[in-house]
Amino acid sequence: MYTKLMTSLTSDHASVVSMNLFVALLCACIIIGHLLEENRWINESITALVIGLCTGVFILLTSGGKSSHILVFSEDLFFIYLLPPIIFNAGFQVKKKQFFRNFITIMLFGAVGTLISFAIISLGAIHFLQKLDIGSLKLGDYLAIGAIFSATDSVCTLQVLNQDETPLLYSLVFGEGVVNDATSVVLLKAIQNFDLAHIDLTTGLHLIGNFFYLFTASTVLGVLAGLLSAFIIKKLYFGRLARHSTDREVALMILMAYLSYMLSELFNLSAILTVFFCGIVMSHYTWHNVTESSRVTTKHAFATLSFIAEIFIFLYVGMDALDIEKWRFVRQSPGKSIGISSMLLALILVGRAAFVFPLSFIANLAKKSQSEKIELKQQVTIWWAGLMRGAVSMALAYNQFTRSGHTKLRENAIMITSTITVILFSTVVFGLMTKPLVRLLLPTSKHMSSIPSPPSTPKSFIVPLLGNENVRRPNSLRLLLSLPTRGVHHYWRKFDDAVMRPMFGGRGFVPFVPGSPLEQTDHQWQ
Amino acid sequence: MYTKLMTSLTSDHASVVSMNLFVALLCACIIIGHLLEENRWINESITALVIGLCTGVFILLTSGGKSSHILVFSEDLFFIYLLPPIIFNAGFQVKKKQFFRNFITIMLFGAVGTLISFAIISLGAIHFLQKLDIGSLKLGDYLAIGAIFSATDSVCTLQVLNQDETPLLYSLVFGEGVVNDATSVVLLKAIQNFDLAHIDLTTGLHLIGNFFYLFTASTVLGVLAGLLSAFIIKKLYFGRLARHSTDREVALMILMAYLSYMLSELFNLSAILTVFFCGIVMSHYTWHNVTESSRVTTKHAFATLSFIAEIFIFLYVGMDALDIEKWRFVRQSPGKSIGISSMLLALILVGRAAFVFPLSFIANLAKKSQSEKIELKQQVTIWWAGLMRGAVSMALAYNQFTRSGHTKLRENAIMITSTITVILFSTVVFGLMTKPLVRLLLPTSKHMSSIPSPPSTPKSFIVPLLGNENVRRPNSLRLLLSLPTRGVHHYWRKFDDAVMRPMFGGRGFVPFVPGSPLEQTDHQWQ
Repeated sequence: MYTKLMTSLTSDHASVVSMNLFVALLCACIIIGHLLEENRWINESITALVIGLCTGVFILLTSGGKSSHILVFSEDLFFIYLLPPIIFNAGFQVKKKQFFRNFITIMLFGAVGTLISFAIISLGAIHFLQKLDIGSLKLGDYLAIGAIFSATDSVCTLQVLNQDETPLLYSLVFGEGVVNDATSVVLLKAIQNFDLAHIDLTTGLHLIGNFFYLFTASTVLGVLAGLLSAFIIKKLYFGRLARHSTDREVALMILMAYLSYMLSELFNLSAILTVFFCGIVMSHYTWHNVTESSRVTTKHAFATLSFIAEIFIFLYVGMDALDIEKWRFVRQSPGKSIGISSMLLALILVGRAAFVFPLSFIANLAKKSQSEKIELKQQVTIWWAGLMRGAVSMALAYNQFTRSGHTKLRENAIMITSTITVILFSTVVFGLMTKPLVRLLLPTSKHMSSIPSPPSTPKSFIVPLLGNENVRRPNSLRLLLSLPTRGVHHYWRKFDDAVMRPMFGGRGFVPFVPGSPLEQTDHQWQ
Repeated sequence: MYTKLMTSLTSDHASVVSMNLFVALLCACIIIGHLLEENRWINESITALVIGLCTGVFILLTSGGKSSHILVFSEDLFFIYLLPPIIFNAGFQVKKKQFFRNFITIMLFGAVGTLISFAIISLGAIHFLQKLDIGSLKLGDYLAIGAIFSATDSVCTLQVLNQDETPLLYSLVFGEGVVNDATSVVLLKAIQNFDLAHIDLTTGLHLIGNFFYLFTASTVLGVLAGLLSAFIIKKLYFGRLARHSTDREVALMILMAYLSYMLSELFNLSAILTVFFCGIVMSHYTWHNVTESSRVTTKHAFATLSFIAEIFIFLYVGMDALDIEKWRFVRQSPGKSIGISSMLLALILVGRAAFVFPLSFIANLAKKSQSEKIELKQQVTIWWAGLMRGAVSMALAYNQFTRSGHTKLRENAIMITSTITVILFSTVVFGLMTKPLVRLLLPTSKHMSSIPSPPSTPKSFIVPLLGNENVRRPNSLRLLLSLPTRGVHHYWRKFDDAVMRPMFGGRGFVPFVPGSPLEQTDHQWQ
């Protein structure tokens, strides 16, 4: 930067100005988001979006209507730098028992549900968009629209739900979001690679087989990377030597996680899934092998990186929404643009309803006890919580519709502006309604865990881990005691204790005091 | 990345492969560096350099002698992403009392010393290089050589000295390194901007005035940014609300530090100095206003970022050393190239000796007590410790000698390869000799602080802060007691307690238990 400024001061001065503005805006988002925290309707995503929009308007006015965006949207920036910390942190902080207990339901919603939503949105787009006559969209474009608008925004959704208050719902929505991201990215990848002129059963089967291969291989790679990090840190046992040991441990964890992401890219797998499972394994084994200060540092450093990346994305989407070039074609026919956005929003609502309720019914069939079933109110919450669209949709839309001619083509410009409209509307309007809706639908959930244990005591840390069975059926003590020892999870625990922990470490294999101040503060701020 | 892979798989596949290799090598450096820690001769820098060289040779052999570097050296990468965390962390972890107590001596060495070294190396280059006939170097090029080889590598040096064992020496070498970096960058900036065809007294005075303006303005900006962060966090007091508060505090500290760096760039100041003083102020005020987990997290997260950036730089320099294109001209006349490198190394040795010993003499004149004076053995250590050249020299050399024709010109290619040779030789050979030399010259220093207090006890945290007067002159108890209440430092403390702390917080203004487990672990792993 120094040296670049020396040689060519004019061109770089603008980029330094824009970076300053952007970092200052990020700070403003954090401070304003903090001040608005007591407001139950607004979350950090909406704050960042609104601040981004205001900045966009301000720049638009001061620059005389020339340009509103100060940073060019870069898919690399998003997929290499912003998404990995968010997804890795999601895996690192997830409550593993809840996630694996509901694994099959999560896969039903995340993979099968996304495919249903994709089919409905694609068919709807073919049916309605052809009537609106917006240009020469091909079959591949319609299918791409289906994939783009099937990617829900788990980032925005999860700020609304509370992991401690509604553990079952949280793990379902959260798990679905991660699998959904991976599914929609893989879908668009497949659509762009396959020859769509000749669709037959073989191509369809090939697509499905390819999807399952990607899913399995990505998961295995993530698990292996996590286990390797646990093994290395356990064998070397950095904690012995005082100097630099925390730096080394933290550096190794960050680098190994990033390596798993890049290796997945190298093998053309789904890097989102890989880094997610790497995070889960690291929090189960590696995290317990490091020193106490490394534990505090990694827990909060990963959360902070994820937090900054989230705000960055929403701030950017807000600022980018007012890019003049894209809106030029919309100005010629504003009614048509509103029509497309409304149609897409309707398809999103229908497409999500079409899988949440039937799949919940199927998931409930497999469950024996009434308490494990997903109630109708919870189904409505799941349906609503996944209506927001966000950064993944934006990135996929840019990828599909800026390849030929950089929004110079009319139909491409219209699709980009429609995507921005859908993202803004769904995040702000649906997002604002989510908190009141959750309070309305699940009024008891707030009191469930706060009555037996006030917040920020160690007890509230244990309740969600045991699931909510013990809260709903406290009369059946025998069932409560027998529950944790049943099923796949029980055999996994036995295998974990007998084979995995002696090799890879984990809780209990390094001097560890349960209920120590650290353990409590971990929960308090997680 | 995903999406980029979709559109153009061939070109990006190579960059994914190289990123994988690079991250894997970083992991290898950390692990091998850890295993070699008990070896007193080798430090992490040398490990990274050697691994980089080996990888370079391996790639050179497998690619059939075509290319050895897998990442193109980017000044932006270095000056925007790698250098800020290193310098900020340096300011954040510095023992402030030692630094400010020796402030005038540090400025003598860092600013005046660098100018003397610059003058000697420039004059030597003009005298000797013209005899060697290596091409059409202009006056500006000779002066640039002086600036490039005046930039010492504080990163490599400080791994050898121990802050607790030799606090005076550490703060002198460390402080000199930071001021020296800033001085040499500003020098090259000035040389490239000023019209060197007409040098007179006015231009010279203008240069000196510009230097002092840059120094003062950069410092003030860094201090203001640090104070602002302390004020915001104190006013909002994030700690009140449990959820997300640590993430917000840590994010705000990182972003404000980065903002100070970018603002300094915006105003064309010395960003290195700004971010350094921002780090000092943040560790003095802001760090004490945040929650305990934020304190642990920031302390280790900043150290880890700095650690990764350091290894990254040395690994890169090692790999880049074998770039074929640059060595083409050298092959035609290997003797000449060795001659230039030897001459530069000799000039570095002479240029550093020419200011360390005279300036130490001047610094000693100002000091009354014998114990505060810099002994001859310490002078030799200071001289030796700053002989290494590193990443800043490399970045400046790339900036000066790749502007016209990307090392296609013979004289540019020769200067780049000479710089690489000097860096490799000084880091590996001088670096390997530093540890034994320090042990030989300062044999008592190891025992000085370890006899009154064994390592990793809270006591060893206090000893270096009081300076080494109390260790050398324990007989004069009155002097010992009167020392901390004398001088500028005393008045600063009074001002700090009366005006600054009530406004910006700091130790003691937030519930804080001295000697808590956290406080001890902080020291243990710092």
